[in-house]
Order: sequence, then C-alpha cells, then structure tokens
Amino acid sequence: MQNFEYYNRTKIIFGKGTEDQVGSETAQYVRRILLHHSGGSAVKSGLLDKVKNSLKKAGVEWVELAGVQPNPRLSRVYEGVELCKKEQIKFVLAVGGGSVIDSAKAIAIGACYDGDVWDFYDRKKTAAQALPVGVVLTIPAAGSESSISSVITNEAGPWKQSVNEECIRPVFAIMNPELTYTLPPYQTACGIADMLAHIMERYFTREPNVELTDELCEGAMRAIIRNARKIFSGGGKDYAARAEIMWAGSIAHNNLLGTGRVGDWASHAIEHELSALFDMAHGAGLAIIFPAWITYNIKENTPRLARFASKVWGVDGAYYDYEQAAREGVFRLKNFFRSIGLPVSFADANLDAGKIGEMSGRAVKFGPLGTYRKLNQDDVAAIYRLAVEAS
Amino acid sequence: MQNFEYYNRTKIIFGKGTEDQVGSETAQYVRRILLHHSGGSAVKSGLLDKVKNSLKKAGVEWVELAGVQPNPRLSRVYEGVELCKKEQIKFVLAVGGGSVIDSAKAIAIGACYDGDVWDFYDRKKTAAQALPVGVVLTIPAAGSESSISSVITNEAGPWKQSVNEECIRPVFAIMNPELTYTLPPYQTACGIADMLAHIMERYFTREPNVELTDELCEGAMRAIIRNARKIFSGGGKDYAARAEIMWAGSIAHNNLLGTGRVGDWASHAIEHELSALFDMAHGAGLAIIFPAWITYNIKENTPRLARFASKVWGVDGAYYDYEQAAREGVFRLKNFFRSIGLPVSFADANLDAGKIGEMSGRAVKFGPLGTYRKLNQDDVAAIYRLAVEAS
Repeated sequence: MQNFEYYNRTKIIFGKGTEDQVGSETAQYVRRILLHHSGGSAVKSGLLDKVKNSLKKAGVEWVELAGVQPNPRLSRVYEGVELCKKEQIKFVLAVGGGSVIDSAKAIAIGACYDGDVWDFYDRKKTAAQALPVGVVLTIPAAGSESSISSVITNEAGPWKQSVNEECIRPVFAIMNPELTYTLPPYQTACGIADMLAHIMERYFTREPNVELTDELCEGAMRAIIRNARKIFSGGGKDYAARAEIMWAGSIAHNNLLGTGRVGDWASHAIEHELSALFDMAHGAGLAIIFPAWITYNIKENTPRLARFASKVWGVDGAYYDYEQAAREGVFRLKNFFRSIGLPVSFADANLDAGKIGEMSGRAVKFGPLGTYRKLNQDDVAAIYRLAVEAS
Repeated sequence: MQNFEYYNRTKIIFGKGTEDQVGSETAQYVRRILLHHSGGSAVKSGLLDKVKNSLKKAGVEWVELAGVQPNPRLSRVYEGVELCKKEQIKFVLAVGGGSVIDSAKAIAIGACYDGDVWDFYDRKKTAAQALPVGVVLTIPAAGSESSISSVITNEAGPWKQSVNEECIRPVFAIMNPELTYTLPPYQTACGIADMLAHIMERYFTREPNVELTDELCEGAMRAIIRNARKIFSGGGKDYAARAEIMWAGSIAHNNLLGTGRVGDWASHAIEHELSALFDMAHGAGLAIIFPAWITYNIKENTPRLARFASKVWGVDGAYYDYEQAAREGVFRLKNFFRSIGLPVSFADANLDAGKIGEMSGRAVKFGPLGTYRKLNQDDVAAIYRLAVEAS
C-alpha cells in the first residue's frame, strides 16, 4: 500500500426533497452567485424554479448562465469567467450533471486568474485558487459533485483536457435520487458506465496489498451492476435503485476507493479522444474502450483480471486458467454494457475507424498513458483497433 | 435508504514516516498547543520526541499534559480544560490511541465552555463549539481519529458516557502503520474487535435498500478478519496487514459505511457498563457482548443475520435454514475473537455476574437501547446472562 492523503471536504446532502436546502447552504458562503445550468431538463422539470425559490427564501441573488452542452465547451467557460469578474461574483452554483459541474469548476478557477483559463487545462499552470462551487446534481455519472476533476473541451482543437486540483472540489453537493427519474435511459446507462469506469481505473493497479480497497471497489461495482439491472428492468422510478446508483456515482470518484493505490486512467485518456472528436457521451465511449483495454492487457497481471471476473462478474473462481476467466469477465462486461443499451464498438456507434491514427497521436500528446501497463501511441492505436468491430 | 448528510472533513495523512508532518500541519492552525498523550508507549518508543522535533521545526510551542489512562477519566479532562484556559491555548494535539483522542476532544469542548464539561456527556448540553483537535494515531481501534465521538469515564459513578458532535471531529489524523508494530497483541486484538463492532452496529439495521453500504460493510469486515489473521499468525511487523487494519479502523467509523442506514448501537451501550465497572478494554467487552446480542436477537430479521454469516464468515449461502446459518455465524465470530486472544464471556474475563442487575439498570438510564430491536432493562440483563458462561 502506498502512502496517501485523503481529504474530501464536500458536504453531501442526500435524499428526497433535499434540493430545498440549496438556499440555506449557499447563504453560508455568499449572498450573490453565478447560477450555472444547461437550460434544458432542469428548466423543464421545474427543478430550476425550486432552486430559485430556495435561493430567494435564503436571500441569495443570482446571475444566470445557461447553455452548458455535454462535453462542456471552453467558450461557455469564458463567458462565465467574464460574468464573474464583471459582476464580482464569488460563488458558482451548478445545477445539472457532470458537464455543468465541470464547466462551473472551470469558471471558478478562471475567475481567480488574470490569464486564459485554458492554461490550466493545457498544463501550463497549476490551479491553486478557485471560487467555491456548490452543486445540485441531476445526473449520477462523473462523480464531479465531490471530485477534484474538471474536463473541458476546447473547440479550437477540438481538445478535451482535464484539471485535477483540490481547490475545485465542491463545497456541497445536494443529491435527490428522485431528480434522476426522468433521465433518458441512454443517459442513465452512460452514467453507469462512467462510474464503473472510475472504479475500474482504480481497481486495475499493480500496487500489492490493497485488500481493503479491493473489497470496497468490488462491492461498489457489484452494487452498481445489480441496481442498474433493477432500473433497466423495472422502469426508472425505483427510488431505492436510483438512490444506490446516485450515491455509488459519488463514492466511485471521491477517491476513498483509490486510497493507497496507483490508478491507471489510460482508458479515460483514450476515450477522451472519442468524445472530443465525435462529440459522443463519455460513458458510451468508455463502454467501447474499457473492454478493449482489458483485452489488450490480457497477459498483464492476469490474476488481477481474473479476480475482477470472479468477484465482480461471478465467473467461477475455480477456473484453472486465469486468462480464460479474465476473457469471460470481459465478455460479461460487454454483455452488461449492451444490456443497458450502450455501444461496445466503433461499429455499434458508427464511429469512423479512419481517425485511429490521428486519435492515438493526440491521446499521448503529454506522454505515454497508464500505469497498469505503459501505453505508447502504437498500443493506443491497437486498443482502438480492438474496439472497431462489433463482437 | 434514509436521507442523510455525509461530511467528513478530517484530513488523513497515511503511511510510513508521516509523523514528521505533524509540525507543518499543526502550524497551519496555531503556534501554541496542548500536547496530550498517555506518557507511556509514545514516550518509550521515541514517537513523542519525533513529534516534538517536528513541532519545533515548524515553530510550534506546546504545553504538555500526559497521563491519559484507558477508559479516559474526567479528572484528567478537567486538568486539560484548566490548562487551556489558563494558558490561552487554542489547539489540542493528541498523540496516542482512542483514549487520548477522546480525552483531547473533551478538553477541546471544555475549553470553549464556562460550565462543567461533564454537562455535555450527561446530555444536559449540546456541544457546538470546540478547539480544533489534531491526531497522531498509535492504536487502530476506536476510529476516533476521524469520528465525531468521544467517550469519557466519570470516576464519581463510575459513569461512561459519550458526546457525538461534528465540532469535535479532528482536523487532521496522521497514521503511520509502523507505529503499531509494538502494540501488545491484546491491544491489537481489542482494536480489531472495536472496529468490527463499529461496522456491525451499522450493518445490523432494519432499513431496507442499503445494498451499496451493505457491500462496503461486508467487504471491510472481510478485509479486517483476513488481515487480523495475518498479523496474529505472522508476527506483528507485517506492514501490509498493519496498514489494512489501520485504515480499516478509520473507515469503520468515519460513517461512510453508515450513510442512509439506521445503526443499532445497543451493544456499545451494553458494553460501556462492563468497561466502566470493571475497567476492562472496550474491545474486549465488545467481544463478550456482541455474540450474545446476536444470539438474543436470533429470531429478529433472521435473514440479515444469515447474510452476515454467509457474506462475512463464509457460511454456505445455500443453508435452507436462516436461523441455523445465523447461529453458525455467531459461532465463527466467537471463534475468531478467541483465536486472537479475546474473551467471549464473563467467565473468560473473570467478571462478576452478580453485577448484571446494576449494570442493566444503568445501561438504560437514558431509555431503551437499539433500533434493530428495542431493548429494555430485562432484555439487556438477558444479554448479559447469555454472555456469562464460556461456550
């Protein structure tokens, strides 16, 4: 087990009706905020009105910035930064999913910086200061509500890059599972793939003696898989299943499950090229990439892949052949993704395999990827190729 | 799943050599502290000198208060409170195990209060303000290093009572598993029983649909049991096993595993009478009480007890008879406690069963205990009686 620091100061307020607390929570920080949202479902569902009423009651004023898109764009971030500076706003409230939260985090850094906020995403600067960010979560997926991550797409490339710094961890996250009842099944599925991937990135490690977090990772993955099936087989309004999935999405990425471990994160970087280029949902991209990543690494520390197959997918632990067990695990992982309506290949999602050369080059622009196995451009291209055909 | 708030702001600094960071961490708060410890093992091992060197380097001065005993006494707390007030000290650093930390927390509340600090333990007042507390942990057990709990013994009774308030959660906890190499086996075992009990109190719930936290609880318990066996079979200097146990002790009681659940906590209250009256280690008392508590409740929500037997102790899940499975689980729990040198009955620990009437009366002095099954004085007495004979 590696030395580690664990410090997660996000206050989670979880359960039915909790969105009514957003005003009183926010008022503990400021009386004037940037209210950031997509302008879509939160408006239609009436959530935004509820949020505004709660803010009003608590005496909090807001300036509104809507229009965040999936794979949130740098241009919208620039608008938010300018607004905060002009209006001397010192708090950003995100009402939405990972895209809105990531955009809010970018604005929060940019508002404390005189230069171009892209500098942080392009690794020219390290973010050490940000406005506090609060969250009302509507999509369980990215775990951004209590994580230090923000991923932004710069349309100029398009480049999709991330910042991972303590200063952008939200100060509170309000999570009402009922708000997720109306999510389209595809978005629910993408979220589930995303949270599973966050755990898998931590689970596939070369670090020995991480038994406690192995157990926690495996347990969380099993709970996600079972409750995903409940949602997809029983209709979307199963509070219990929605609640398990929503809380699991935070736990998957609040880094408790990563303590003492060295995560891999190559699949995330490989996927980012898909969503940057084809503007596809991150979760769908991960459903395509992760099985290919495991298959490419099938000879690498195969006992761990076999353990994943056994503990998470119920593959008989008495398999005499680790590789056979591991391949069965990949098969079940793919089947699971397909069963909830996700693509597991370029073909499934109509992606152009002709872009593999370009994408693999860009994926390694900051150097080789991963720690479970270091991947150079050729490796990344091979993983993309493994994902081309439906199988 | 119940609505919940989860907010744990303790910064964990975990791993080899981390005690050297105590000075720089403390200096972020103040330049003058109360240094609180037992005066025993931390002095002998040289840890206290290391701590002092680190404080000195960071320009932090200290006033020392040693002499904390297991089942920490109110009289020592009074001394600390007086010292803090007289010397205008605004930070308490605990170097030790749960007793030292609990004592430090009590001092931290008392220093902010004009009346008698026992008022908070006697439920006459609610603690809302405390000095910040930092921790260098030497005994993985109580989870006090990142919990909101403090348990103090008032010699006048003797009464053993607790405070559970957010304001006493430590601001940082430094945890080096190497510091636990020299713990006597009995203390190691008591700590293991304590952390298992913290999870069991949360695990035995009537709340339905808490699948994710069920999985996390079960995984953590399995990891504790396996690594306890490694420590006891392989000698105490197994870094990996010591690290798993140390981190598990925090996770067992930082309340992540309790989110959305309603815990029971009757066994803790029933045990407190044992340690108050016989001055025995809390963990040893729990090893006596918990199997008796399960046995007494064997007809109550038996499937959950059977699940515990199956998932945690490997009892065949195909048992046709839940009760039979549950009893086998209790048998294995007792065997495990015995295997690491703990008593599992009054007889094992030479406790006077003649005190059962008195203890059961005091255990319910604030009302019936528990939520899994509400226990009145007769129930509590029956549980004590189930624990009388070695079995």
